Amino acid sequence: MWDVIDFIERKRDGLAHSPEELAGFVTAVRDGAAADYQISAWLMAVFLNGLCEAELVAFTDALASSGEKVVFPKAPKNGRTILTVDKHSTGGIGDKTTIVVAPLAAACGLRVAKLSGRGLGFTGGTVDKLESIPGMNMRLSTDRFLKQSDEIGVALSGYSATLAPAEGIFYALRDVTGTVPSLPLISSSIVSKKIASGADAFVFDVKCGSGALMADPASAANLADALAGLSGALGRKSSCLVTDMEQPLGEWVGNAVEVRESVDILSGRGPADTRELCLALVSAMLVISGAEDSPASARKASEEALDSGAGLRKFAEMTAAQDGDASVADDPSVLPSAAKKHTIESPGTGTVAKMDARCAGMAIRALGGGRLRKGDVIDLSAGLRIMKKIGDRVEKGEPVIEIFYNCDSRLQAAEAHIGRMFAVSDPPVAKRELILMKRD
Amino acid sequence: MWDVIDFIERKRDGLAHSPEELAGFVTAVRDGAAADYQISAWLMAVFLNGLCEAELVAFTDALASSGEKVVFPKAPKNGRTILTVDKHSTGGIGDKTTIVVAPLAAACGLRVAKLSGRGLGFTGGTVDKLESIPGMNMRLSTDRFLKQSDEIGVALSGYSATLAPAEGIFYALRDVTGTVPSLPLISSSIVSKKIASGADAFVFDVKCGSGALMADPASAANLADALAGLSGALGRKSSCLVTDMEQPLGEWVGNAVEVRESVDILSGRGPADTRELCLALVSAMLVISGAEDSPASARKASEEALDSGAGLRKFAEMTAAQDGDASVADDPSVLPSAAKKHTIESPGTGTVAKMDARCAGMAIRALGGGRLRKGDVIDLSAGLRIMKKIGDRVEKGEPVIEIFYNCDSRLQAAEAHIGRMFAVSDPPVAKRELILMKRD
Repeated sequence: MWDVIDFIERKRDGLAHSPEELAGFVTAVRDGAAADYQISAWLMAVFLNGLCEAELVAFTDALASSGEKVVFPKAPKNGRTILTVDKHSTGGIGDKTTIVVAPLAAACGLRVAKLSGRGLGFTGGTVDKLESIPGMNMRLSTDRFLKQSDEIGVALSGYSATLAPAEGIFYALRDVTGTVPSLPLISSSIVSKKIASGADAFVFDVKCGSGALMADPASAANLADALAGLSGALGRKSSCLVTDMEQPLGEWVGNAVEVRESVDILSGRGPADTRELCLALVSAMLVISGAEDSPASARKASEEALDSGAGLRKFAEMTAAQDGDASVADDPSVLPSAAKKHTIESPGTGTVAKMDARCAGMAIRALGGGRLRKGDVIDLSAGLRIMKKIGDRVEKGEPVIEIFYNCDSRLQAAEAHIGRMFAVSDPPVAKRELILMKRD
Repeated sequence: MWDVIDFIERKRDGLAHSPEELAGFVTAVRDGAAADYQISAWLMAVFLNGLCEAELVAFTDALASSGEKVVFPKAPKNGRTILTVDKHSTGGIGDKTTIVVAPLAAACGLRVAKLSGRGLGFTGGTVDKLESIPGMNMRLSTDRFLKQSDEIGVALSGYSATLAPAEGIFYALRDVTGTVPSLPLISSSIVSKKIASGADAFVFDVKCGSGALMADPASAANLADALAGLSGALGRKSSCLVTDMEQPLGEWVGNAVEVRESVDILSGRGPADTRELCLALVSAMLVISGAEDSPASARKASEEALDSGAGLRKFAEMTAAQDGDASVADDPSVLPSAAKKHTIESPGTGTVAKMDARCAGMAIRALGGGRLRKGDVIDLSAGLRIMKKIGDRVEKGEPVIEIFYNCDSRLQAAEAHIGRMFAVSDPPVAKRELILMKRD
């Protein structure tokens, strides 16, 4: 008889689990034989006592094997085998890169079939964002996901119940039990989903800063190493960017508003930082897949696909294929928008010293755009507009943040976070580097 | 807005909670605003990171105040005020003392109004045991509990939903999440329930050994000190026995079988260790309540009430008052009994060196007599008969344990535990001391 209490006690007491025990636990989680409250007690024990390398590989493998696995045919192109490539961000504030990168990489000839998550901790989720497009289906069956990625080169789906189902249970519980920022839990979650969704090679975007799971470059580098090690131990190629998340990425934070910014980027407009990161990620995908020989040719191909509008057309095609209103590509006003706006002005003249990503994440959650509890319904139209970035000059009274909201009590709840989000300094402050490290 | 995730993260990160935060959390738990999986994540964080003294007092007070509090009138007797006394065991294997002590103390003139628990971890619970008496109501309303204890001097009830309701939620979750053996969680659980149930003075029986929450005398002494400190900080008198739980108490382990042994003790029969501990506990209650002046006169009063049958009559009266079949006091065959018996014989001749209480607890749980998950229905008739104690001589082939069970697959599940439970040694082994420490 499987004794889940004994299992929890082992980790509580700092002992190591065998691969068989971990596989048994993952099966019990998937089958409902371990209850939510037991899983979360174990998650907290892992958070505080860790998993060793052998436990991590076995746990990840068990998660990846807890359901169906997608298998793509290997398609040769110009005499070379093109790998199916996946891109994963560890989650940040205003990080809408998936919405741009997936269709853009597909427009460059890659096959991009990507499972994304819902909001986790104080960070947003691509699935929630894309669901703000009227009709958009983010729960594709595996068959449909495979067929769509074969036919048009790109499919984005929320976590299906058939792929790595146990991982979905852990993921939802971590979000609401304070067990998100744990190296073994993060890396196993990411890599198991990537493996179940069938790609041969992964590009990881590890966020670093106040709005990221990893607050400093050293922990971000640790996570990058953990992801590379775990991918390698499970037979997959990977490369990794470590990028800044001290301030939000781009101009908009929320759900519908981030889709709008993505459409802007794909249309050749939008903020420079979002554009730059999207191009860097697509280039890395083209290199690791073998589609391009060098970083330079990959960069050129990515820019061409963006500037020609091929990426935007692929986005519209993907949206239509997933029952979404593809007119969003030309007219983002089909997206839901908030009823009210509140503007925050700069209290002084100087340089922006702080535009804190974590505070922005907490604020958007307080506005209803993120989750406090598993299954909470979120307000897709709430948003923040970040009008100044760290290092920008600002005049006293100049607008720095716009808050788009629907409910006065939620605005009030958000204001404490907004109040801590912004600071002006008299001495000049340097602009922040966007891409901190590249690891192959 | 109460942010339970922030709260969990504080404890996860080793920070201290304020009294207001703790009161807010306890209220959220009581009201269902904190989910089971969030509570259990916090419990594991407390298990691993602890609570400081100020947190412990505030948490205990919040638990005790999370619902109704019983208030007894102070009854003067012979010119002195008699306190209402409660007795609490930290839980062991075969510990049926409450079933004997409560009516016996009442027969000596005390008012005993005691809330008891269900099975916790691998230990049994008085409520489960007494529910094996046909008809026995262990869910008394507060009114009925008060009235009964006033009229006949004794009432035993399972944890009512109106007294310390938040504590009941924590208690049930700890049982199934590997967070039972934690000093702050144990002591706050015990003292909050005692305070809500209205007694002025407490006698604690802290068990020590493999079958107890505290495995060694030092941790048991720590718990005794924690209970005394917490009781004092919250304005209550207490005294404490630390007693052996390396081997089961008495002859029987289970539910119905322990009621049978209790009736034996109250009838002047039964094993000497159970009798001795019951008399020691009743004596301590008579002293701390002020009903008797000295340990010697208290002991004499306890023995007289036992030997005269006054305790047994009080037990029958209590059973009848709680709708139970009071004929159990004369004829324990009204209790449920298991269909099958399996006997374990000694593999060699020598002295019993081991009769492990924890293994007995695991075995009875495997037989269906304890819980793996909150709300599991238990088999009240399953039982173990412990025929030899540590230090007893035994011959090869002599029966040492009898297993009473209903289901062959459960017997199989129990056998691994039974196999580790018993050992014989060639050199003689000393009998164990029953009462290890007394603290006032």
